[in-house]
Amino acid sequence: MRMSQYFLPTLKETPAEAQIVSHRLMLRAGLIRQTSAGIYAWLPLGLRVLRNIERIVREEQDASGAQEVLMPTIQSADLWRESGRYDAYGPEMLRIKDRHEREMLYGPTNEEMITVLFRDGVKSYRDLPRNLYHIQWKFRDEVRPRFGVMRGREFLMKDNYSFDIDKEGARRSYNKMFVAYLRTFARMGLKAIPMRADTGPIGGDLSHEFIVLADTGESAVFCHRGLVDKDILSREIDYDSDLQPIVNEWTSLYAATDEMHDKAAFEKIPEGDRLAARGIEVGHIFYFGTKYSAPMNAIVTGPNGDSVNVEMGSYGIGVSRLVGGIIEASHDEAGIVWPETVAPFKVALLNLKPDDATVSAACQKLYDALGASGQVLYDDRDLRPGAKFADMDLIGIPWQVIVGPKGLVAGKAEVKNRKTGQREELAFDDVVPRLA
Amino acid sequence: MRMSQYFLPTLKETPAEAQIVSHRLMLRAGLIRQTSAGIYAWLPLGLRVLRNIERIVREEQDASGAQEVLMPTIQSADLWRESGRYDAYGPEMLRIKDRHEREMLYGPTNEEMITVLFRDGVKSYRDLPRNLYHIQWKFRDEVRPRFGVMRGREFLMKDNYSFDIDKEGARRSYNKMFVAYLRTFARMGLKAIPMRADTGPIGGDLSHEFIVLADTGESAVFCHRGLVDKDILSREIDYDSDLQPIVNEWTSLYAATDEMHDKAAFEKIPEGDRLAARGIEVGHIFYFGTKYSAPMNAIVTGPNGDSVNVEMGSYGIGVSRLVGGIIEASHDEAGIVWPETVAPFKVALLNLKPDDATVSAACQKLYDALGASGQVLYDDRDLRPGAKFADMDLIGIPWQVIVGPKGLVAGKAEVKNRKTGQREELAFDDVVPRLA
Repeated sequence: MRMSQYFLPTLKETPAEAQIVSHRLMLRAGLIRQTSAGIYAWLPLGLRVLRNIERIVREEQDASGAQEVLMPTIQSADLWRESGRYDAYGPEMLRIKDRHEREMLYGPTNEEMITVLFRDGVKSYRDLPRNLYHIQWKFRDEVRPRFGVMRGREFLMKDNYSFDIDKEGARRSYNKMFVAYLRTFARMGLKAIPMRADTGPIGGDLSHEFIVLADTGESAVFCHRGLVDKDILSREIDYDSDLQPIVNEWTSLYAATDEMHDKAAFEKIPEGDRLAARGIEVGHIFYFGTKYSAPMNAIVTGPNGDSVNVEMGSYGIGVSRLVGGIIEASHDEAGIVWPETVAPFKVALLNLKPDDATVSAACQKLYDALGASGQVLYDDRDLRPGAKFADMDLIGIPWQVIVGPKGLVAGKAEVKNRKTGQREELAFDDVVPRLA
Repeated sequence: MRMSQYFLPTLKETPAEAQIVSHRLMLRAGLIRQTSAGIYAWLPLGLRVLRNIERIVREEQDASGAQEVLMPTIQSADLWRESGRYDAYGPEMLRIKDRHEREMLYGPTNEEMITVLFRDGVKSYRDLPRNLYHIQWKFRDEVRPRFGVMRGREFLMKDNYSFDIDKEGARRSYNKMFVAYLRTFARMGLKAIPMRADTGPIGGDLSHEFIVLADTGESAVFCHRGLVDKDILSREIDYDSDLQPIVNEWTSLYAATDEMHDKAAFEKIPEGDRLAARGIEVGHIFYFGTKYSAPMNAIVTGPNGDSVNVEMGSYGIGVSRLVGGIIEASHDEAGIVWPETVAPFKVALLNLKPDDATVSAACQKLYDALGASGQVLYDDRDLRPGAKFADMDLIGIPWQVIVGPKGLVAGKAEVKNRKTGQREELAFDDVVPRLA
């Protein structure tokens, strides 16, 4: 993409309303614009990141055996009366009356709706387990929306719901999501640590929050340092196998959010292994049994012909929130440092002298060679080099290829790694193979 | 995907509420379920079709030079007061008050919001033209929602907006969309004919509806028969060139909806070339000049340093509506007949005797060979052959591979084309190459 033709309005000034670094950088780098309090439009560069995150989430859901559906944003209040949550849910629910004065709402989550879809579509234990996910916009009417997409009102979430015939099946479904989440966040370049989470009034110990460590995190977290270095991506995962050993490996080391923190247990960890840090919640998995299937009559016929309320779990990933979360975890003074897997473009091409025909011809050649995959952002704008360097560092594309008249005389271009800052002078013909 | 594990609740009975064939078939084939009046959840099979349509729309938008953004569903009423449309818009607008009693609405369209994004991001004629699109859920509170996704309340639409410095630029932008729309619908296997449309109070002749011919169409349309056979996909399109000759080729032949019908002009067509039919609107393109840029101050600096209100157009494709539209145009007594480009799966594999180990092993072999791309739906369910044949015809996957014990003894499988009904007996090893 040529920047001269791209809708990418970067800002030099930091907008006054942005209190945290990801919000500042997302506005400055032209990823988003606020359209109402806590509601954002995604500009082309930001949307590319959002789609990359969504793609990774989807691939890992599919690999785990979950099936994608898409539920609407607007729900009927009657649905929530079936579960008893309509009156219980606070003012964060955006309540709506349609033209016939029917009570509707903008879905903050989908337990009720998926339970109805399941109930109408599945009748026998032979059709279990089922795990259905969707990636859809949600609305929670936060009283004071802030921190950009980290705590917006309209936000994109992946939520899914597992249905099993018994507790043992539910545990297996839970474990699949546990492992799928480890993989999902790791693929985005994040260190996301599963931490025991509060299960609320229904109890049980099957609930984990996935927390990304970041100095600017919203809450205090405590864990064994060993969890930071654990690697899931090097493992072969067979989702048909028993994943309990992997889950045990992660849960055997101490990790808890402030809410669940057990000071005594933490202090039993050797001091050098104790990590007290700040974190950002990016996912939450939860087993809740028959909480919805009982009041809503989600029943299947069991092996003995009896009627069984299905055992359910729900699992959420804040897709739009992750854009902010990744920036909180990966930035420097100059701007964003995108992990390659979610970067809006893989390569930035900087033409330092667009009015020089030789430089522009050389850039065009590189652009054609690198650009076939659509993964190159080409700064062909008529601006001084300093402004281009600043914009590219701000935008945070992993690789910069810098072409100027001086280097070109020697047949060279410079390749800079955004993360390390390392620069290499390369012969012109070596640039494309270097980045392949 | 194995049907035994797939969330695909087909129905034998036709639901009473479905008045038109696409609605009936979408419910019966397990593509959608209604969750409230005029609001639908997309089940896995339906979502695959929706995503295929969305992908084609996106590819053609990108090829034309349009850039993708994503605007939120919830908008501020103040935005619509700027253009003067808030009070003018009727009860189809879903009006909402948030917890602070601020007036909001669920966007039925996005002219106002995109104008603000453009206004804040683009300042100079040098940054024009721009064409920004998004694919997002909209809400129109129809008084009597019906016909399934053809006239739902919450629906997925691709809308885009072009910005040009002058009328001539706007015409070029309009022509790009005209051609992109021809290509988009043709790639979905549709004969969509551009017809002159009413431009309303602002006049001008730059407005066309794209109409798919279908006996069950919602409105009467009239055109020259020659338009039906015109082919856009065999042309090489250069979006940087002047597309007026292509537009002229299509618009020189008579075509009009009932509203715009000129009986006298129609009767000048030789009788054999006159086509009076019924049609379904699937797209609409519209040039409206400074209708929004003037009241909302979307101004750029022109070449002479003067301030110019940008010339705008808007362009819409009903993405979710197209799922129904394609079915209206392509079905038979037995069910849906998907064009290959939008089909949820390319190949259906029918195991006629799943309890026969030899048959199942043969099916497994084919499934592994065909299924690598995820484009095979494998009916491994414990059902009698008749039920499987009926379900697969209903679902409408383009190719069926039928494996039963009798054929297998002779080392053969049957391949059936859903559209033509043609059947071929093939040696087992020839099945995969035949479908490649």
